[in-house]
Amino acid sequence: MTAKKNLHFKKVAIIGVGLIGGSLALAMREQGLVTEIVGVGRGVANLEKAIELGIIDSYTTDIREGVKDADLVFLAVPVLSIAKVIEMAASELKPGAIVTDGGSVKETVLEDVKKVLPEGVHFIAGHPIAGTEFSGAAAAFATLYQGKKCILTPDADTDPGALSAVRDIWESVGSIVTEMDPKTHDAILGAVSHLPHVIAYALVNTVAGTDAGDRTAIDYSGGGFKDFTRIASSSPDMWKDICLMNKTAIVEVIEGFQKELEILKDHIKEGSADGLIKDFGRAKKVRDTIKN
Amino acid sequence: MTAKKNLHFKKVAIIGVGLIGGSLALAMREQGLVTEIVGVGRGVANLEKAIELGIIDSYTTDIREGVKDADLVFLAVPVLSIAKVIEMAASELKPGAIVTDGGSVKETVLEDVKKVLPEGVHFIAGHPIAGTEFSGAAAAFATLYQGKKCILTPDADTDPGALSAVRDIWESVGSIVTEMDPKTHDAILGAVSHLPHVIAYALVNTVAGTDAGDRTAIDYSGGGFKDFTRIASSSPDMWKDICLMNKTAIVEVIEGFQKELEILKDHIKEGSADGLIKDFGRAKKVRDTIKN
Repeated sequence: MTAKKNLHFKKVAIIGVGLIGGSLALAMREQGLVTEIVGVGRGVANLEKAIELGIIDSYTTDIREGVKDADLVFLAVPVLSIAKVIEMAASELKPGAIVTDGGSVKETVLEDVKKVLPEGVHFIAGHPIAGTEFSGAAAAFATLYQGKKCILTPDADTDPGALSAVRDIWESVGSIVTEMDPKTHDAILGAVSHLPHVIAYALVNTVAGTDAGDRTAIDYSGGGFKDFTRIASSSPDMWKDICLMNKTAIVEVIEGFQKELEILKDHIKEGSADGLIKDFGRAKKVRDTIKN
Repeated sequence: MTAKKNLHFKKVAIIGVGLIGGSLALAMREQGLVTEIVGVGRGVANLEKAIELGIIDSYTTDIREGVKDADLVFLAVPVLSIAKVIEMAASELKPGAIVTDGGSVKETVLEDVKKVLPEGVHFIAGHPIAGTEFSGAAAAFATLYQGKKCILTPDADTDPGALSAVRDIWESVGSIVTEMDPKTHDAILGAVSHLPHVIAYALVNTVAGTDAGDRTAIDYSGGGFKDFTRIASSSPDMWKDICLMNKTAIVEVIEGFQKELEILKDHIKEGSADGLIKDFGRAKKVRDTIKN
């Protein structure tokens, strides 16, 4: 993890100074990649906190003011807001500026961004696969991205120089960068991240509705259930956006899951010990390849 | 957590000296509830380890020999084996002996046990809601059950004195004991434990089968997926038994889950932001009542 030669930004604007945006700011600063960092957000208390913690040098609640003269703009906002923020900032984005994001959906976001991106401004779609269960500037830390994967999804319109600069930033802060097309990204994240969230929400609603006489089923849940459903505490608003922005891939993978679940249900109904051993074993073998 | 007055067993047989059986042995010993503990199992290396760790005083691989003269027999074996073990032990179980278990399914187990239980021997069906991801005697520890729920499922045939003794044991080792009928237990555990396991297995199989070009989707899973699918590393053999023994309740709750998932899928397909916010929010509200 060392900063690349000649990789330096005079002014970086971080839109959304929470765990994702704040951690990138801290890591870029630590690597000496930036002279000045401006934070942009709606919550003044959070922005004040970010100054206090040395994450940003100054802040504004005005997007246009924030991006003025910025060489790099990092958007750590909900996926449905990415194109909207660029549209609002458009008149002040300087030619040659690089705009990049950290959103969990890529194809539809890219389509929307292309409609509003000013001529001469480069957009690089990115997605660092990192996070914790905490949020806000106070949750940010410089090593969040170390050893974590970061996916960039360039397409035919992507500027090679801007792509290379964004790749260098993520590598400088310790990430393992991969490039893939937006559709592949959305299929993969639909499966490993978006589907589990939808399932967790559906599971908790099922258990809440389980008839257990005068008992509440959820009172008897153990550690496994807790781990399994932690993600059902995620923001409904954020996940609503992700589901709507990655609709096609998510519906497809939900249907794939419905088939797998139906197979297991049939084994149980038919009392097929062999079928259960085979299909549980198939899953265990794959899951065991992930380190705990 | 203090041992009840007059609660003492001269000889306790623990069938299955792993995390569950071994931890009960250690906790009973710590509370001074027992003079001698015999371990019974098939793996001699594990039983030797249990002696070395002070969990048991002696061991045998012969069930009949193990239960001979025992006042209390604790069965920590897979649910499909509970009645089988009692049948094998039957000729040596002494009149007045209390046999109890820690299995995750109660109604069908009770039915099977009643067919083989000798006259004068008491069976108390129990289920401590505790565990870790580790197994074997080496994973056992005396405080496993402290503050954890333990469910007992007596029915019309249950001996009140034996029930009270088993309740006292679990309370002495720190558990919060609840009684409910076997059917309610199976509906609750079907929802909070068995269903999540079936879902985790189906999810991992879905992700493993996700077409992501020349990529492997699972390589891009983050911490959330890891937590969410940890239980898919559980023993296929053990979970096959549980699914078959609790078939009716599990099939019913899978169908309840399928309906909840279909509702969410429809919201996504129809682009219903309001529907997603409402149903994700409903789940979040319930999940937030569980402490992390």
